[in-house]
Amino acid sequence: MNIQQKPEDLIPRNVTCGPLPGAHKIYHQPQAHPQIKVPFREIALDPSANEPPVRVYDASGPYTEENPQIDLAAGLPPLREAWLAKRGFETYTGRDIRPEDNGSIGADKLVPLCPAVRAPRRGREGTLVTQYEFARAGIITEEMIYVAARENLGREQALAEAREKLADGESFGADMPAFVTPEFVRDEIARGRAIIPANINHPELEPMIIGRNFLVKINANIGNSAVTSSVAEEVDKMVWSIRWGADTVMDLSTGRNIHNIRDWIVRNAPVPIGTVPIYQALEKVDGDPIKLTWEVFRDTLIEQAEQGVDYFTIHAGVRLAYVPLTAKRTTGIVSRGGSIMARWCLAHHKESFLYEHFEEICDIMRAYDISFSLGDGLRPGSIADANDRAQFAELETLGELTKIAWKKGCQVMIEGPGHVPMHKIKINMEKQLKECDEAPFYTLGPLTTDIAPGYDHITSGIGAAMIGWYGCAMLCYVTPKEHLGLPDRDDVKTGVITYRIAAHAADLAKGHPAAQIRDNALSRARFDFRWQDQFNLSLDPETAVQFHDETLPKDAHKTAHFCSMCGPQFCSMKISQDLRVEAAEIAAREKGMAEKSAEFLEKGGEIYVDADPAR
Amino acid sequence: MNIQQKPEDLIPRNVTCGPLPGAHKIYHQPQAHPQIKVPFREIALDPSANEPPVRVYDASGPYTEENPQIDLAAGLPPLREAWLAKRGFETYTGRDIRPEDNGSIGADKLVPLCPAVRAPRRGREGTLVTQYEFARAGIITEEMIYVAARENLGREQALAEAREKLADGESFGADMPAFVTPEFVRDEIARGRAIIPANINHPELEPMIIGRNFLVKINANIGNSAVTSSVAEEVDKMVWSIRWGADTVMDLSTGRNIHNIRDWIVRNAPVPIGTVPIYQALEKVDGDPIKLTWEVFRDTLIEQAEQGVDYFTIHAGVRLAYVPLTAKRTTGIVSRGGSIMARWCLAHHKESFLYEHFEEICDIMRAYDISFSLGDGLRPGSIADANDRAQFAELETLGELTKIAWKKGCQVMIEGPGHVPMHKIKINMEKQLKECDEAPFYTLGPLTTDIAPGYDHITSGIGAAMIGWYGCAMLCYVTPKEHLGLPDRDDVKTGVITYRIAAHAADLAKGHPAAQIRDNALSRARFDFRWQDQFNLSLDPETAVQFHDETLPKDAHKTAHFCSMCGPQFCSMKISQDLRVEAAEIAAREKGMAEKSAEFLEKGGEIYVDADPAR
Repeated sequence: MNIQQKPEDLIPRNVTCGPLPGAHKIYHQPQAHPQIKVPFREIALDPSANEPPVRVYDASGPYTEENPQIDLAAGLPPLREAWLAKRGFETYTGRDIRPEDNGSIGADKLVPLCPAVRAPRRGREGTLVTQYEFARAGIITEEMIYVAARENLGREQALAEAREKLADGESFGADMPAFVTPEFVRDEIARGRAIIPANINHPELEPMIIGRNFLVKINANIGNSAVTSSVAEEVDKMVWSIRWGADTVMDLSTGRNIHNIRDWIVRNAPVPIGTVPIYQALEKVDGDPIKLTWEVFRDTLIEQAEQGVDYFTIHAGVRLAYVPLTAKRTTGIVSRGGSIMARWCLAHHKESFLYEHFEEICDIMRAYDISFSLGDGLRPGSIADANDRAQFAELETLGELTKIAWKKGCQVMIEGPGHVPMHKIKINMEKQLKECDEAPFYTLGPLTTDIAPGYDHITSGIGAAMIGWYGCAMLCYVTPKEHLGLPDRDDVKTGVITYRIAAHAADLAKGHPAAQIRDNALSRARFDFRWQDQFNLSLDPETAVQFHDETLPKDAHKTAHFCSMCGPQFCSMKISQDLRVEAAEIAAREKGMAEKSAEFLEKGGEIYVDADPAR
Repeated sequence: MNIQQKPEDLIPRNVTCGPLPGAHKIYHQPQAHPQIKVPFREIALDPSANEPPVRVYDASGPYTEENPQIDLAAGLPPLREAWLAKRGFETYTGRDIRPEDNGSIGADKLVPLCPAVRAPRRGREGTLVTQYEFARAGIITEEMIYVAARENLGREQALAEAREKLADGESFGADMPAFVTPEFVRDEIARGRAIIPANINHPELEPMIIGRNFLVKINANIGNSAVTSSVAEEVDKMVWSIRWGADTVMDLSTGRNIHNIRDWIVRNAPVPIGTVPIYQALEKVDGDPIKLTWEVFRDTLIEQAEQGVDYFTIHAGVRLAYVPLTAKRTTGIVSRGGSIMARWCLAHHKESFLYEHFEEICDIMRAYDISFSLGDGLRPGSIADANDRAQFAELETLGELTKIAWKKGCQVMIEGPGHVPMHKIKINMEKQLKECDEAPFYTLGPLTTDIAPGYDHITSGIGAAMIGWYGCAMLCYVTPKEHLGLPDRDDVKTGVITYRIAAHAADLAKGHPAAQIRDNALSRARFDFRWQDQFNLSLDPETAVQFHDETLPKDAHKTAHFCSMCGPQFCSMKISQDLRVEAAEIAAREKGMAEKSAEFLEKGGEIYVDADPAR
């Protein structure tokens, strides 16, 4: 061991903790289920608002509690332990960790395993294991109760205005109820229309649901590459990304220490963790796709299953027959997994081993309740290649595989593009729903133009908002570094906030019953010049206050009836408020403007007409 | 005069000049019009690309020439002078500048006028003045020839693939030709479907066109507020915003020095300058909306007309009758102009003087060919208020005013919202086209959610891309500082780039014949690992290269077949390229993979199937 570097130097110690500004964490206990505690964030408003706190969905885990006791080496508390323990799973001695699991790295550079050891569990043949199997059997699991309460933002009944809101949106066939019951959750899962990615070896998980009839979710990708970053950075990025709103996190690490980095991430993740197992399998064969074998891949699946990974991207739709379809593309194959498999197929002139062994993959994933994320290995990497035959041929195969996975008892979602101009986005959504029988869609963006590297969070945020509206269940973020380099902490935050915007804009447009509550609260705060409330209600209070304070830093400005954008005389909100005061005075003087207006209306008068010609 | 501060200290001296990385300015002379020189930017590619340079639309003026000779005190060269001189306009002694034009500021703080004096011109009664009048008379102006060449990116004929591209897009009734002729431009202007904002007192202008059947344009707002900034900053922001792609610039200055700041801006602006004259009128009556009069407003119109402002926002649709419709709104009236006029109407209990004097306003604006931008004073300021009766009542009035302005010979566009959830955006576009008889729409965003102050360039960029696709002709940018403070230089750039993305995404989706050229060139560069070409072809080469170099700064990395995002072994593009090499080898060995594929196809073989089941 290198004497300059001790193992203690390699392990993660600190992550960002504590509540967001103006917010605190609450735990809601669904009626009749006191053992279930569902987390929310509550944003308190200024007393002058005379409004209750605003409750928002919160995926950030215990890290955002007041003074949380976080010990990364111990992992998060295993909140699902009691639920899992009674399901009759087998506990067994797991697979030994081998040097190649960490890229055969030297002992001096080997990141230690996370000390929070969990003995692996496995579902037995012939018993119910997956959420899909429970749902099909008519059984409501604790996870289903949990996500129902979570989707309702802890409401105990439908909002009075919920029905109206739903009617206001355009959901393109999505069927969101005004109030989500555990039975509705069960039914959606049984139908294959939603998934709860939740490996039975990930007891630390706070369950969440992905489906078209629920809130739109977002995923953040993290992971070191062979070129840069460390385990401490990656664990910090995971906690950082959920702090700002990532609903799931994919660990796309490549290079060395891949097993042990993942260990730290899973043990400390309250959100589902996804991976692309082929990446690690490739590391085990020295990075040469041609050397990949089913055996190496299979072993990698079990390795990661035992650690508790919640969903696997499996590129089983990249069939040998489709590879020539990419030959004339502008950007060939841009999915890493897709290009690896295409290379393998072509070199061996054989059908993909993922496709050939798909049923065995299902059996493994079912035993741990790992959800499929069927990868779109042939997604377009440019506007020129969007919606081409290669992409759609693969999607048709994914539809075929979806049905096999369901038959095997697995939960399934489908990955989607990529780079797609706006007018071709809806076609993707519709084809996915049709081919995959409404299994949840999970897309990367899509980017609506290729010409803005450095701003691809925005080129793709546009496409993400639109496809979310059209019915996509989860949006995989894109950071400003896309196409250029590995995202750092700031990029992760920018990506997450951009995708929270896209997901929320989609929820609003779909008419989700609870979506507009936060917009309305923030808009009222804005109109009332409750600056602090406006900051606290925003997706990123820190940036909002910082931008405001660049020109008006004093405390007094936090209640000022203007900002530096227009200055005191030109603030339309101030004038509009003055106008209300004035209108009230006039009203008092003239027995009420409203009365007067009504009077004129009755007389067909022309001063305060009701301007609706339809009346 | 304060001895510490000399007038020289107050005037602008420096702006950012020189070409963008990898680009140089060219001037194209349309066939048969050697006196007309239309600017473009050409981006040279690496010789290995074996491709011609990529030509892009360029609104940045002479500032991006190689070693431009810029003298802000002299103003830009008056390139339209010869065209205007022969049109028989009257030259006259303009209105005297009065102390109140600059907010009666003390001599020590008075910004000097720009020394580039232009004697004002005015159109005579009974002669043709406006582009609309020329167009209606069947006359093609130099401005029309100029914009036709500009819209074609200097092509002399339709692109071979243009028709196909058009067919690929979904234009929602927009009717873009594969090749824009001056006659097409004339016809669109005569029809009221497009405008060329070009005050006859702004000879420095490089003409541009705003209309649904042309490239989507963007506007950047600049201007000091009473709280912050200076003339030097504002001139710099104007040049900076067009450097990154603003097609027009609105000077929304309030506070002091308003006349003289505008003078520096107009004299140095190659793009149309828009203003909201009511802002300056309000300054002249000590900031009290109630003291406004038609006379003060009229005088301000003439003051700004003589300076060369190209379009005026006129909030003549805020009628007394509509004010009560805003009483129950969540955010009242959020347009500054709208709130000023509403206050005036209510206080005096009178119809708006802008509405009452609309024909006189038309007469003034016609005499200088100032285009109307009919303001949406009652636009929604929150998701809750979107598409309400107040907004649409005003839009109906704007339709009525459009027809009056046309009758009076004026060019007209219509301003639009604001804050609108995605599912209500298309309704806005459709209603505007119907009510305003296809006059160009010019919207602010719209913002698709209220919950992200600090990121409203993104919340609104989503809405902007969508409404641009649906038919909006110009998108007014929103910066990250929206709702929080006055944008600085960085914010201006971020806003402009975001809106260039939105406009370009819209052009792609509409099927504009030339839009995809740049995407394809960049995507090819990406696939070929021509990093420098990829940076240079991007909307912001400086940011792209900076992001890349954060992790891979060496020159050698500019040709490396990977980046730090995935590292060398995991680059899908690299694998995909290797795959092509391998495929070529196999092809050579087996007499061509394509042949083999074809052979199998013929035989109904199963190895390289054509995956299209429709065959």
